[in-house]
Amino acid sequence: MPDSPASPGPASSVTPRFAILVAGGSGTRMGAGRPKQFLELLGEPVLLHTLRRFTEASLRVQECVVVLPPDQFDSWQQLCAQHHVAIAHTVVAGGHSRWASVRNGLAHLKSHTAGTVAVHDGVRPLVTISVIEATYAAAEAYGAAVAAVAPKDSVRSVSQQGSFALDRSRLRLVQTPQCFELQLLQRAYQLPELTTFTDDASVVEDLHPIQLVAGDYRNLKITTPEDLVLAEALLQAPSH
Amino acid sequence: MPDSPASPGPASSVTPRFAILVAGGSGTRMGAGRPKQFLELLGEPVLLHTLRRFTEASLRVQECVVVLPPDQFDSWQQLCAQHHVAIAHTVVAGGHSRWASVRNGLAHLKSHTAGTVAVHDGVRPLVTISVIEATYAAAEAYGAAVAAVAPKDSVRSVSQQGSFALDRSRLRLVQTPQCFELQLLQRAYQLPELTTFTDDASVVEDLHPIQLVAGDYRNLKITTPEDLVLAEALLQAPSH
Repeated sequence: MPDSPASPGPASSVTPRFAILVAGGSGTRMGAGRPKQFLELLGEPVLLHTLRRFTEASLRVQECVVVLPPDQFDSWQQLCAQHHVAIAHTVVAGGHSRWASVRNGLAHLKSHTAGTVAVHDGVRPLVTISVIEATYAAAEAYGAAVAAVAPKDSVRSVSQQGSFALDRSRLRLVQTPQCFELQLLQRAYQLPELTTFTDDASVVEDLHPIQLVAGDYRNLKITTPEDLVLAEALLQAPSH
Repeated sequence: MPDSPASPGPASSVTPRFAILVAGGSGTRMGAGRPKQFLELLGEPVLLHTLRRFTEASLRVQECVVVLPPDQFDSWQQLCAQHHVAIAHTVVAGGHSRWASVRNGLAHLKSHTAGTVAVHDGVRPLVTISVIEATYAAAEAYGAAVAAVAPKDSVRSVSQQGSFALDRSRLRLVQTPQCFELQLLQRAYQLPELTTFTDDASVVEDLHPIQLVAGDYRNLKITTPEDLVLAEALLQAPSH
């Protein structure tokens, strides 16, 4: 009842927030001895930086789920002990693909019937609190929202017939977080996996329009050795 | 005559190479006191780094044209004196847009009737010699070639109706150098300027197919303050 004296405040202020941090890297792609999510960034594992951002108190995230390959559980536990991590979070086993890993993380939240869930790459440790907050808020208002930036470069489309210029003013490079009304994301992950799924927006978009939120060029995804160099430089830069 | 005893070697080994380095930045966008092409990167102006790469002897570039806003000629001359630059190059006045600036640079080469010309952003100082060489070589073989990389992020197209996922495996982010058979580029720049021109490939593509060459993620365009931080980090990284 809208005029009930016991009615809660605006929905956005009371809806619980959840986060799924997906870290599926095996380490082979980085050419390093360990998975990219465990590489050290200014002395701490990449994934720990990411976890710290999402558990920042002002964001009010109720539960943080970290999805990892099962054979990395022990390493993560050791790293948490070594770095005296006292951040509450749940570790869930990843699957054969990013899609399967998110689905497993989401299954852990199945007892919840309402709220907003952020899916975020475990290897995007530079995401700012303000981008996370803006993406949650947009999902609370519109149901589905992802952080994205305009490409700085010209973009070409390639085919067997050659390549042609696209209008880059109409394109956005998608980052994470990608935030969704919890039941919407649960419904989307009940559909079969498609090879065209590259992120959660692509999983959800047939069910619900995707709102784009201003991301941040510094919100790097650590996928190559030079990305780690860049991330360290950005963390140490005075402007950060 | 193919069997003439005086015939030269393969065309690619004798065609002269030219380069146009376009530096049109006014400095306002970087929020710094000076244009971004003059900002210091490890103690030397960004544009000087770029000039050094293109005048590397192995590339055999016959003439290097630097396009600058006329009110920056004095500053550039002073910087060259200060850094004891003894690299032969010609300075040409830029125009009202990137297109006009390239056209002015190209006009300086009008006495040449054959060869291959590279157009390169003055603020991409990290381009490697191997990417420059590969792009020249591809243009010598195919007429038009640009350096490009696959996007690391998912890509969405935005419109008034909302946003939708694109197949990123078919997309490339375009960098420079962009290399062209000289007369082809001269012909393309005789056509009127269009607002859809964001690079030289878009100027040429209606006349000739564009070959894509593997660029390099480190080949940053310095357009924001954090890019300068990233460029310094990459130049100092052991892998570079």
